Amino acid sequence: MNHHKYALTPPMGWNSWDCYGATVTEDEVKGNADYMAENLKMYGWEYVVVDIQWSEPGAVSSAYRPFVPLDMDEHSRLIPATNRFPSAANGKGFKPLTDYIHSLGLKFGIHIMRGIPRQAVHQNTSILHSKATAREIAKPNSICPWNTDMYGIDSSKDGAQAYYDSLFELYAEWEVDFVKVDDIADSRLYGTHTEEIQMIRKAIDKCGRPMVLSLSPGPAPLEHASLLEENANMWRMTDDFWDHWELLYNMFERCYKWSKNSGPGHWPDADMLPLGHIGIRSVDGGASDRFTRFTKDEQRTMMTLWSIFRSPLMFGGELRDNDEWTLSLLTNEEVLHVHQHSYGARQVFRDDDKVVWSSKDDDGNTFVAIFNLNDTEENVTVNLEQLGYTSNVNVRNLWERVDLDLGSTHHNLSFTLAPHASVFLKLY
Amino acid sequence: MNHHKYALTPPMGWNSWDCYGATVTEDEVKGNADYMAENLKMYGWEYVVVDIQWSEPGAVSSAYRPFVPLDMDEHSRLIPATNRFPSAANGKGFKPLTDYIHSLGLKFGIHIMRGIPRQAVHQNTSILHSKATAREIAKPNSICPWNTDMYGIDSSKDGAQAYYDSLFELYAEWEVDFVKVDDIADSRLYGTHTEEIQMIRKAIDKCGRPMVLSLSPGPAPLEHASLLEENANMWRMTDDFWDHWELLYNMFERCYKWSKNSGPGHWPDADMLPLGHIGIRSVDGGASDRFTRFTKDEQRTMMTLWSIFRSPLMFGGELRDNDEWTLSLLTNEEVLHVHQHSYGARQVFRDDDKVVWSSKDDDGNTFVAIFNLNDTEENVTVNLEQLGYTSNVNVRNLWERVDLDLGSTHHNLSFTLAPHASVFLKLY
Amino acid sequence: MNHHKYALTPPMGWNSWDCYGATVTEDEVKGNADYMAENLKMYGWEYVVVDIQWSEPGAVSSAYRPFVPLDMDEHSRLIPATNRFPSAANGKGFKPLTDYIHSLGLKFGIHIMRGIPRQAVHQNTSILHSKATAREIAKPNSICPWNTDMYGIDSSKDGAQAYYDSLFELYAEWEVDFVKVDDIADSRLYGTHTEEIQMIRKAIDKCGRPMVLSLSPGPAPLEHASLLEENANMWRMTDDFWDHWELLYNMFERCYKWSKNSGPGHWPDADMLPLGHIGIRSVDGGASDRFTRFTKDEQRTMMTLWSIFRSPLMFGGELRDNDEWTLSLLTNEEVLHVHQHSYGARQVFRDDDKVVWSSKDDDGNTFVAIFNLNDTEENVTVNLEQLGYTSNVNVRNLWERVDLDLGSTHHNLSFTLAPHASVFLKLY
Amino acid sequence: MNHHKYALTPPMGWNSWDCYGATVTEDEVKGNADYMAENLKMYGWEYVVVDIQWSEPGAVSSAYRPFVPLDMDEHSRLIPATNRFPSAANGKGFKPLTDYIHSLGLKFGIHIMRGIPRQAVHQNTSILHSKATAREIAKPNSICPWNTDMYGIDSSKDGAQAYYDSLFELYAEWEVDFVKVDDIADSRLYGTHTEEIQMIRKAIDKCGRPMVLSLSPGPAPLEHASLLEENANMWRMTDDFWDHWELLYNMFERCYKWSKNSGPGHWPDADMLPLGHIGIRSVDGGASDRFTRFTKDEQRTMMTLWSIFRSPLMFGGELRDNDEWTLSLLTNEEVLHVHQHSYGARQVFRDDDKVVWSSKDDDGNTFVAIFNLNDTEENVTVNLEQLGYTSNVNVRNLWERVDLDLGSTHHNLSFTLAPHASVFLKLY
Repeated sequence: MNHHKYALTPPMGWNSWDCYGATVTEDEVKGNADYMAENLKMYGWEYVVVDIQWSEPGAVSSAYRPFVPLDMDEHSRLIPATNRFPSAANGKGFKPLTDYIHSLGLKFGIHIMRGIPRQAVHQNTSILHSKATAREIAKPNSICPWNTDMYGIDSSKDGAQAYYDSLFELYAEWEVDFVKVDDIADSRLYGTHTEEIQMIRKAIDKCGRPMVLSLSPGPAPLEHASLLEENANMWRMTDDFWDHWELLYNMFERCYKWSKNSGPGHWPDADMLPLGHIGIRSVDGGASDRFTRFTKDEQRTMMTLWSIFRSPLMFGGELRDNDEWTLSLLTNEEVLHVHQHSYGARQVFRDDDKVVWSSKDDDGNTFVAIFNLNDTEENVTVNLEQLGYTSNVNVRNLWERVDLDLGSTHHNLSFTLAPHASVFLKLY
Repeated sequence: MNHHKYALTPPMGWNSWDCYGATVTEDEVKGNADYMAENLKMYGWEYVVVDIQWSEPGAVSSAYRPFVPLDMDEHSRLIPATNRFPSAANGKGFKPLTDYIHSLGLKFGIHIMRGIPRQAVHQNTSILHSKATAREIAKPNSICPWNTDMYGIDSSKDGAQAYYDSLFELYAEWEVDFVKVDDIADSRLYGTHTEEIQMIRKAIDKCGRPMVLSLSPGPAPLEHASLLEENANMWRMTDDFWDHWELLYNMFERCYKWSKNSGPGHWPDADMLPLGHIGIRSVDGGASDRFTRFTKDEQRTMMTLWSIFRSPLMFGGELRDNDEWTLSLLTNEEVLHVHQHSYGARQVFRDDDKVVWSSKDDDGNTFVAIFNLNDTEENVTVNLEQLGYTSNVNVRNLWERVDLDLGSTHHNLSFTLAPHASVFLKLY
Repeated sequence: MNHHKYALTPPMGWNSWDCYGATVTEDEVKGNADYMAENLKMYGWEYVVVDIQWSEPGAVSSAYRPFVPLDMDEHSRLIPATNRFPSAANGKGFKPLTDYIHSLGLKFGIHIMRGIPRQAVHQNTSILHSKATAREIAKPNSICPWNTDMYGIDSSKDGAQAYYDSLFELYAEWEVDFVKVDDIADSRLYGTHTEEIQMIRKAIDKCGRPMVLSLSPGPAPLEHASLLEENANMWRMTDDFWDHWELLYNMFERCYKWSKNSGPGHWPDADMLPLGHIGIRSVDGGASDRFTRFTKDEQRTMMTLWSIFRSPLMFGGELRDNDEWTLSLLTNEEVLHVHQHSYGARQVFRDDDKVVWSSKDDDGNTFVAIFNLNDTEENVTVNLEQLGYTSNVNVRNLWERVDLDLGSTHHNLSFTLAPHASVFLKLY
Repeated sequence: MNHHKYALTPPMGWNSWDCYGATVTEDEVKGNADYMAENLKMYGWEYVVVDIQWSEPGAVSSAYRPFVPLDMDEHSRLIPATNRFPSAANGKGFKPLTDYIHSLGLKFGIHIMRGIPRQAVHQNTSILHSKATAREIAKPNSICPWNTDMYGIDSSKDGAQAYYDSLFELYAEWEVDFVKVDDIADSRLYGTHTEEIQMIRKAIDKCGRPMVLSLSPGPAPLEHASLLEENANMWRMTDDFWDHWELLYNMFERCYKWSKNSGPGHWPDADMLPLGHIGIRSVDGGASDRFTRFTKDEQRTMMTLWSIFRSPLMFGGELRDNDEWTLSLLTNEEVLHVHQHSYGARQVFRDDDKVVWSSKDDDGNTFVAIFNLNDTEENVTVNLEQLGYTSNVNVRNLWERVDLDLGSTHHNLSFTLAPHASVFLKLY
């Protein structure tokens, strides 16, 4: 499991989906990368990821156009649409864009759908390093129910592994650092495509470049926790996450259920952060162009849960439109320390939608996140004994960066929290 | 529900699937039609049906070749492969073959898959009498899991009904009498395609020709009994039926469950009769070229159940290879009288796999079928009271065409039956 | 199937559940019977049914008290609680009450739960005409999930049939005319209890009294249509029906699905009519003491659907509190003629929640029910051809008892209907 | 999660079920304990567990007698049947037996069903330290489908926690060390009873005695991995395990799926070891009195899998009837070292039913288990690189206690294995 060396801490980056749907352009990618290099890189943010359908010249939103032609090379491999990614002209693929991202000290990621283009199958095009043709390796009934681009690959066929190998050979030529594979972790029609996950693992191992492997969409089933950990670096615990309280509310249960299966190189993923300016060319998530619908309390609650649980952090908004508040959510070193360096995260209790999580770090600090998931103001109290402390401790509020004087509450941490609000503490 | 006038008695005919899979040729169809005209027509047999993939020039067995090109006209409609159906050359379609069948005093039927060819969708070809194109009416995720020919039609789209109308306009031009639509009654992936059933009903009603509509595959769910009856003439109660005792055994339960939903113009269908010489170019049903694996007792048991239940009778073997026994199963007027003219079929009882069915006719006769479904010889007794008789009656064995002397069994019909055997009686 | 002679037309009556939950008393039963005899009997209403838990002395509402003792005889049979049914004292059971009901020219019905009392099983009491004891015939895991009174009966055990026989022997002594058996048609935990249905059928056939058999709760699955028809006189298509529009809305689909399985002696049942004064001692249905929450349009829509579909009509309110409007719903001979004497009911079409049903009678009349299920006023038009008429016909509004002058709408019946409203017509 | 300190290594012991079903007696328990003290204690075996229905005086096999009376104290708590456990007379419960077991230097465990006796509920008996009665805390529909002893407890009711507290107060008085709770981890009818698991956790934490908590039956769902780990010490991955190859074959997949959720204090459990003389008074597992039906190869394969996976080891046979071979399976210190002291167990690969597992210990040793799950002899090869070694290593066969000379196979471990056989190696 050498791939567990690739993402020793949960990845942090930007992804184009929440703001640009299936339509992001090279200029927009570069613009967000520039912003990241200038404002976020020093805090650990590093991945710049182009999401779905970069081969579709006519993509106009997050709604896919069924059955339309995609840009493809002579070996049945999708390539960037040059009207959207001009530097990809003349067969250069994403290499020029990767070079640019790398020049900023950042890393580059792409999205792919599992499988081979349906257009390749119906045209019966060739496969690199194989005598098999597209028609021969496609699995006839293996479709994605929400996108018409691909057929799945039949692992029992000659040429099947060769096709995945040829894809990652190309991505390695492009010097891609991160691949998000879609329609694979919970494929709606067919559950988890375990065989294609294993073919992709082998293809990455063969290609010689240590790409981080991210699997979508969720909810990936816990039933496959071992397989996911042994083949991928991150996998979605949830269907697409958007700026609805209900989705955030449900994430607490998801994190609880997956909390024992997270660790260096393998991270259950709570999905992108729909923060800041999103929906610019997307109609997904029940809304269009907007600033996040989450309240400030909800935004901190989300960042707190993602951080103590150690989900990957992938910002979904147009970074260049960040306001000061949004930027502050991404640049709090004390919070990000928990995200990058804590371990042993667990839900201490959940009673009446009052939830407490804790974790530790190697310096002996304990981190405590206290959440009020109710729609009413509530007092939430956690006994220090439940956290492993028998006497008074020092307590620091991580978001506010201030030490707290707990006064007479010798044995308890007790907070009155607004609806959906939280506090994030360090005990030391 | 004018279509209930089309098949007032359960249809009887021949179908190419059990012997020729997806590969039947014009000569073979004509040869079987000739045989039917000469040997069976006088007993009520009339339909000659070409089963699946008559547009596939390279079909070699019952195993479909995925993603291969099909013969298609300029309006996205599949047409006969002329290498297999030479008379279809020059755009004549099935009209010459229909003419031939009609000249014999018989009727002609074809099989279609619901939907529009995938090749039409990926080539985005045109639709007759509509501005819509193939891509625009296909339902993206509506595939058949066992055959790659088609995409389903999205009934909400302009051009959807027009496409089905154009199909049946063509079949009316060909003077087709019977259409078996597949991947629709129980589509495996998606259950029953109720909207496409309704579009097809409308298309037939519009086309002006009274074609019998048969829906496959089964088991059609009882949940949709009303919809099936109101839109079709027959629908499958079962997945493909083959010459395995287990499948025949299970048919008793299926017939029981559907017995209240059978009547003039609407017939739950127990599927083709895998009798005589079958599997000639088919590998379906767990075997290849053979005479039916059913024992003689099982063959009569099958014919008896199909007849008293009034399932359509579609012979599956190569008629020209019938032996005398096989022919005798198809030409017993006393048995076929029950099939064509009885009503009120019901399972009288089922105890320990001893099963009794009865029905009546307008002449006051009662028909009784007594089955031993056990693997051992058993005595099966039915009390005359259970059949509505209080005194002695005359009893005739229909298969043997002899009157029985019941002797002292004044109140009971009692038979010792070999494993899987049956008797079929008339009480008068 | 002699039992099909018991309820040749769909039963009409009163049931205590909607107004009195599990608590009805003898006086209340008699009071409603008196009202029925005086006001409704001449219209065909005849059954007076005591619903659930007449053996529970302490019943206080529709919420059952778990595990409480029930009144039981020495043979493990539940008997009426004499504090609620004083005439049952001295072991007389329901016989005195039945006598009273019969003296009014009406019929008497009771509710039972399938199975044997848990208290009998844990006390291991005896069974009449059998050496088996209660413990020996109970099916260990066969409970009802919403009521703790009974264990199911294991049909494979000696004494099982004897116990059901002993029950119906007792009910025959009481001269009961109608038995509603609960937890049997769709038992929530275990689906349909087909074996207990068959034991009950045999027990009724043996007892020598032609009791109507009604099965609850629903939705009974269409999968068991044959079995239900062959063993019962009516069975619920639905879970408990209450005065919520959503439940009434859904009944249209249920009636459509069951419309082919209705006929003399066997009636799919849309459940009681929650009309008039209901919820008097019931907290079921999301409300308590009230007049029905259905609007007048909805009440007529319900009565129209129940009548043309020919569901049994069981009034649920306290009859003595009926106002003039409510009484008018039960005493329209023209509407009740359709309920008692029409046949061939079918949904003619359903488009955009505009629904049309039709049926016929032996005098050549056609009945048409036109419904607007939308929440907005809508125009609903039905073409006379869809109803089998090619020229003008006479049209009568059944609820208003007036003939309509359709004027220039020669070929259509067209009505503007308020939300949830309907018209009920006779064409002649 | 203090309970993770109770079973830092996977428990080892003996359980009465496989040999004595529901019928074990005090003498038999003592006899097996004596054997363990003399022959196994020095190898780490320590728990002596009395399995199900020690309150049933008339238990005769593994088949439960439905609805029979159980021995119970005045507080609705089951107590040992004194005809089977004479030392329990005079209200002493299991204390005298525990004392005896403890005197041998061993630990004592009991089995319980979740919930409260049905007989308590129907008699409405009292609950210690609570005003609630049995009837008031029982959850009406919460039964076990395979045993009629109990109703589940409704955690929302006053007295619910008190009842579980009263149970563990009693078990603490008896000085019980281990409690196996049944009908709770995968309850067949209702899935996992998470609320009762949490009540039991609280009751143990309150009782002041560090009892190991074991949950049955399986398969516990991975969906609840977090909850199980946070509340129990071991939980079943499987339904009852018996001496059938198919069950052992399937355990490989179960172990793979749970391999990430095993660690100090929390052990996924592959169930008892059906070795030696089993089925003495049991008819479960498809056979009766016998020596294990597993071949010797299968026995070692089982012990190897249980050891490297670190499942609890609970011997199921009558220990006193062990032969030398059987004893040898329990007393190999080199194998047991892996069971007690390794970590990081993972399935290295599984191809064509050739399976390799590995783990490590703190001394730098690597353990490798190589299995042939095929029904034919097979060669199984594992590359040293797959195990993290790049050069030659020393290899020791743990079962045979011999060092191997791998000769020229510098880079591979390669073995020809009989059907169902395995080798268990140490690399150092």
